[in-house]
Amino acid sequence: MSAQRWRDPVRVPDVACARAARARQARLTKPPGSLGRLEEVVCRLAALQASERPRVDAVRIVVFAADHGVAAQGVSAFPQAVTAEMVRNFARGGAAINVLARSLGASLEVVNLGTVHETGRLPGVIDRPIGSGTADLAREPAMAEAQLLEALAAGGEAAERAGRAEVDLLIGGDMGIGNTTAASAVASALLSVPPRYLAGPGTGLDAAGVRRKAAVIEHALALHGSALAEPLEVLRRLGGFEIAALVGLYLRGAQLGIPLLVDGFIATTAALVAVRVNASAREWFIYAHRSAEPGHRMVLETLQAEPLLSLGMRLGEASGAAVAVPLLRLACALHEEMATFEEAGVSAGPEPQP
Amino acid sequence: MSAQRWRDPVRVPDVACARAARARQARLTKPPGSLGRLEEVVCRLAALQASERPRVDAVRIVVFAADHGVAAQGVSAFPQAVTAEMVRNFARGGAAINVLARSLGASLEVVNLGTVHETGRLPGVIDRPIGSGTADLAREPAMAEAQLLEALAAGGEAAERAGRAEVDLLIGGDMGIGNTTAASAVASALLSVPPRYLAGPGTGLDAAGVRRKAAVIEHALALHGSALAEPLEVLRRLGGFEIAALVGLYLRGAQLGIPLLVDGFIATTAALVAVRVNASAREWFIYAHRSAEPGHRMVLETLQAEPLLSLGMRLGEASGAAVAVPLLRLACALHEEMATFEEAGVSAGPEPQP
Repeated sequence: MSAQRWRDPVRVPDVACARAARARQARLTKPPGSLGRLEEVVCRLAALQASERPRVDAVRIVVFAADHGVAAQGVSAFPQAVTAEMVRNFARGGAAINVLARSLGASLEVVNLGTVHETGRLPGVIDRPIGSGTADLAREPAMAEAQLLEALAAGGEAAERAGRAEVDLLIGGDMGIGNTTAASAVASALLSVPPRYLAGPGTGLDAAGVRRKAAVIEHALALHGSALAEPLEVLRRLGGFEIAALVGLYLRGAQLGIPLLVDGFIATTAALVAVRVNASAREWFIYAHRSAEPGHRMVLETLQAEPLLSLGMRLGEASGAAVAVPLLRLACALHEEMATFEEAGVSAGPEPQP
Repeated sequence: MSAQRWRDPVRVPDVACARAARARQARLTKPPGSLGRLEEVVCRLAALQASERPRVDAVRIVVFAADHGVAAQGVSAFPQAVTAEMVRNFARGGAAINVLARSLGASLEVVNLGTVHETGRLPGVIDRPIGSGTADLAREPAMAEAQLLEALAAGGEAAERAGRAEVDLLIGGDMGIGNTTAASAVASALLSVPPRYLAGPGTGLDAAGVRRKAAVIEHALALHGSALAEPLEVLRRLGGFEIAALVGLYLRGAQLGIPLLVDGFIATTAALVAVRVNASAREWFIYAHRSAEPGHRMVLETLQAEPLLSLGMRLGEASGAAVAVPLLRLACALHEEMATFEEAGVSAGPEPQP
């Protein structure tokens, strides 16, 4: 596959800005380190934005929707029609991510990469059709090579739109009935972990359903066998349009130097693929939320990622990442607006001022 | 002590509203339960606000400041002067909680209950002097009986002001050099756990400092001995003005039916005292943040409390609770604004609509 562009170098974070931000944090009127992960994340953002005073004002959320052939195997608690129905719900503003984006003042893009059921033209939905859903990964490769490249490109284009809009933070999300099966299959192949340790209830399978889902993935891994040696080939055979688009969003976002806030299980699996394709992309990821989906833990551990939040969410649509945005904003506000020991005439504590 | 008023019944949460909120959550266009703790907390708020559609618009934050005689034992990384200096910092708007309150649009009250160093009259600071700091709990009771009752009353008055202002949520916070020692002593006595398991670095003690702090508390527990049988007597002998004010805030808040968002270690220790005084007050507590201070874990376990956030913060001033406010607001927005399956024409999932 002609996928070389995804391996092009990513932007290098500015460590001097992170150092300057850490020095500022040490001068603010609080015990050193007492803002915990809010200090960490603001210093990360300082490096990524190449600014001692980072900000998270302009936030872009992109939700990629697509259907999955593997839904035919009965691996979801919801019927496949729900993918298209939810795209219509996004267009009308009634889904969780609509509410969150409105509440946060974030711009929301919905990109339909291919649903089995027709949605018709919808206001505010970008149609970028790649196929009528993927093929069934339990029977054949989910995507043709050209489809994979198109899906990656669709994600890259969204990152470029975000770059032109000069967003401070970019979030990717997913909608697609069957996509926890695809993501579990991808993660299983990349981590060499048996599917039974990764497969979970997704939108609400019972225990028997989860066992069936694991068996479907087990079968798929055996079917694709030694072809699963390379990350983009894993993605092509086992992934989905929206998962591949997230990979493209992340890789192009990292190349453009846009801080990327990673959502739950599907998104983190895409981040793992991105890191396997282009290792230094990992520098651009901030992990927002630990999903209730059991596979997420192992993918996070592999990435040595510790998300900011753990609220038992498992909704997709970038909702977990959206909920973390106010934390980043408050971290930036504290960093920007708190008085220093010197300004406030407060006696410094155990660590002398630099 | 004439403390009967603190044992008066608290408002009874409205379980019918919680049930109605749960039923609404089940109809929203998402997999059942997929908002995790955001669903839980919005149903809790529904019960506490006696409204199927709760809201967290008007938020009141009250920070109680006071000095601690036990600071003379060298139990803090910062000098005692910092308490008064930080009160001035609050008045000028430069502290963490000022930034957070402004960012959240929350009203902030600072109540000075007694600092050793003079602050002078300060705009926006309520002077409610109870003494020039507490006595040294390692040598004698921290408070006289009248001082304890005054401190409780100061907290109760703040709850009454919040009630008159019809706030949707009330948060209490603390400032006082030495107060993790006092809180650790109170928790140690109430939980019958040796101080070495509870004492932590506070604002930044090193390991030797933490051992010294634990030894000071050990000594104090031996000194007060069998007098530590009753929760308000534990509070009087080992607590502090601001800790007692938080107890008063919580108990009066629960009596008035105001949802209470509990901050970190100091605040949760006050919540534990409140529950020991008036068990059903616990219904009114939502726990915001797991502090990095090690004693917090045991106090939370005793209260069977699982905070929403765990960000390694250990700053006090209600800062951990403030950071959790946007989560409650987003939970309310999702509850209020998301479309139902019926409204959106989305196929329902595994659990049929009620």
